[in-house]
Amino acid sequence: MQPISYDVLAIGNAIVDVIAHADDGFLASHGMTKGGMALIGEARAETLYAAMGPGLEMSGGSAGNTIAGVAALGGKGAFIGKVRDDALGDIYRHDLSALGVDFITPAVSAGAATARCLVLVTPDAERTMNTFLGACTGLEEADIDPALVASAGITYLEGYLFDLPPAKQAFRKAATLARGAGRKVALTMSDSFCVHRHRDEFLDLIDGHIDILFANEEEIRALYGTDDVDEAARRAAGHVELVTVTRGGAGALLIDAGGRVDVPASGAVTEVVDTTGAGDLYAAGVLYGLSRGLPLAECGRLGCAAAGEAIGHVGARPQADLRAFL
Amino acid sequence: MQPISYDVLAIGNAIVDVIAHADDGFLASHGMTKGGMALIGEARAETLYAAMGPGLEMSGGSAGNTIAGVAALGGKGAFIGKVRDDALGDIYRHDLSALGVDFITPAVSAGAATARCLVLVTPDAERTMNTFLGACTGLEEADIDPALVASAGITYLEGYLFDLPPAKQAFRKAATLARGAGRKVALTMSDSFCVHRHRDEFLDLIDGHIDILFANEEEIRALYGTDDVDEAARRAAGHVELVTVTRGGAGALLIDAGGRVDVPASGAVTEVVDTTGAGDLYAAGVLYGLSRGLPLAECGRLGCAAAGEAIGHVGARPQADLRAFL
Repeated sequence: MQPISYDVLAIGNAIVDVIAHADDGFLASHGMTKGGMALIGEARAETLYAAMGPGLEMSGGSAGNTIAGVAALGGKGAFIGKVRDDALGDIYRHDLSALGVDFITPAVSAGAATARCLVLVTPDAERTMNTFLGACTGLEEADIDPALVASAGITYLEGYLFDLPPAKQAFRKAATLARGAGRKVALTMSDSFCVHRHRDEFLDLIDGHIDILFANEEEIRALYGTDDVDEAARRAAGHVELVTVTRGGAGALLIDAGGRVDVPASGAVTEVVDTTGAGDLYAAGVLYGLSRGLPLAECGRLGCAAAGEAIGHVGARPQADLRAFL
Repeated sequence: MQPISYDVLAIGNAIVDVIAHADDGFLASHGMTKGGMALIGEARAETLYAAMGPGLEMSGGSAGNTIAGVAALGGKGAFIGKVRDDALGDIYRHDLSALGVDFITPAVSAGAATARCLVLVTPDAERTMNTFLGACTGLEEADIDPALVASAGITYLEGYLFDLPPAKQAFRKAATLARGAGRKVALTMSDSFCVHRHRDEFLDLIDGHIDILFANEEEIRALYGTDDVDEAARRAAGHVELVTVTRGGAGALLIDAGGRVDVPASGAVTEVVDTTGAGDLYAAGVLYGLSRGLPLAECGRLGCAAAGEAIGHVGARPQADLRAFL
């Protein structure tokens, strides 16, 4: 088996976040479902952008945020995702490269612009997302390099990729290659609406193609059509090596062959400012811990700590030196 | 005299800030003068950007920040400044428009890209700026519309405009038009290095062309070549209707025909995170107060309060609802 060059290879939509404050009335008047992620076309993206307040731009994307967190913790990461050769694409590449992440996929020089996500943060710190996928729609099987996948200890995939058929094919190829190379495959469910859209395919995938499953309470409930989070988590644990469910202020649970661990939310959070990226950074902490062979409870603690840093400021990616923060 | 349509018309460099954390060693190894603003070319901009950490992008520019603050306080503002028709230019226009500011100048469709400022924030919350002026170099006399200037109660100009000869001509034209229309002209000195670069011209300008002068301690000292801030402020007061000097943690002083007022720094600041924009937002508070005919001490208090909001977060522009914050 070839040596491991990367602790984690993340594959996801490469999206620049445009973050603004808004009140609940703004969400209602524009027909948004609070807390969710809606896919929007270019025309609606322009309408919403024109209506929303002054923005703050920063690189985002679920798997992109996670790999940024892994790198900030000291792990070695790679990223596969698609941007255009435009200003936002340059920003996206810079922000990963600056953390030492190898952003593998070259920018495309034609077609839709780099993806952006209009993120509205309400006074309760909840975030509601509207994503124009743009260049991400070009992600396809050909972007998955077998040697790269084989060189990563864990290949981490976001469920959002299932919203685009070519990206879904890329997802399946990466998962198959990783397992074929004796590596681990991790999946985050991304969003409960995403789970509803692709429930049967997710269930099929989890049964034999995924080693590590990340979800929040809503997502795991949606997956098994039950209100009982514990039951849903137990069911998932029957199919994967490790399942972990984040529970907001209640922390997270993790189940592997050794049993169940419950980890409290970070005590370092003094004020919840913006929940964007909390789940992504939780995954970063857990993946980093797994890559270092740490005990399950310690992996969960790292996840909650990284998530705690993320919710203390506007924007998803770490602003503090995460290693010092921990 | 035509009616006043705008409380303040701001004229300045339209710049998107790219903000990253850095330590003092980074500044030293790249030959930066801490706390200053350096003009850089495209090649150095690329080198520095490649070397700096993950960024956070938001609209900036000194006068742009100020007019954003005026609008956030409830004033009616207009802005003249130059961007390209590119992604950063669109962001710049959106962020002012979203606050109700009329961004008058159309984007140019050729030439250099929209300006960006690489802002390094050190652990002591000081900011060090590296500005690639790009499209701003195209600002010229033709961009100054006499009717617009005449419709603004105060025309506010940033000293940075003096770094570009065509912009300097635009500056002089705007000041002349405003005074000719019976309006007030305000100038911010921008930066002590900028004062050193243009000292004689600034002295000449202040003598008969400026009504309201904004400076910090270093700038007013540089202008008069003295270490004594009080003496320098008194000298300036002999030439303008109102001079106000910001003093960091010591608040600000204001001198007009009625005498001198000293205002303490905002007591609402619990942690200084990033001083970027403190002076710009101080100016916003004072200008808003003047536009409402408030007493001098109240103008100063508004300025210190707005500055206090700005230094409590990363980035220059208001993140809180400034009216609620006050």
